Amino acid sequence: MREKLEKAVVDERLAALNTWSLEEEGSKWIMRKYRFSSFLQAIAFVKEVAQVSEAMNHHPMIAIDYRVVTLRLTSWVAGGLTELDFATAAKFEQVYSEVEG
Amino acid sequence: MREKLEKAVVDERLAALNTWSLEEEGSKWIMRKYRFSSFLQAIAFVKEVAQVSEAMNHHPMIAIDYRVVTLRLTSWVAGGLTELDFATAAKFEQVYSEVEG
Repeated sequence: MREKLEKAVVDERLAALNTWSLEEEGSKWIMRKYRFSSFLQAIAFVKEVAQVSEAMNHHPMIAIDYRVVTLRLTSWVAGGLTELDFATAAKFEQVYSEVEG
Repeated sequence: MREKLEKAVVDERLAALNTWSLEEEGSKWIMRKYRFSSFLQAIAFVKEVAQVSEAMNHHPMIAIDYRVVTLRLTSWVAGGLTELDFATAAKFEQVYSEVEG
């Protein structure tokens, strides 16, 4: 779960989780921007994301620009992307569909 | 409250609120980084900041990097910094001392 993935596996995981993308070609980060109907809705999402992150002991970088929330994930210790990053991102997708769905 | 301040007034306000600073020389943004004892403490702070922002109808850009929260303020409509930015920043200071104090 916490071992660095080969590029081919990363590409496969991104194809399966197609709302997320590499921050840039060759980046160690995956990211997604989430849009909300209101600022408070965005904040509610961040609160849920925080709970999931604590439970998984894996924390994204979070930026809140009014109604847009950007999440970024990487695995520092592995020096790249791991299964944990993709598992965490998948949980955030679930949270989003619950908050904004 | 919502008129752009002259540079001299901005300097005066920043001297009074000395935990905040211009993002860079001549910037239209003021900013501050807040450090917390835990990630969930940082999230609790952001939640309070969100309530204050809604009440003042003035929203900061927010970045959460684990236990560090960066807030940035400007007044888009005025095209620069206004009294509202400094009044809002002062409220955030109050929230911080309540959450982490």
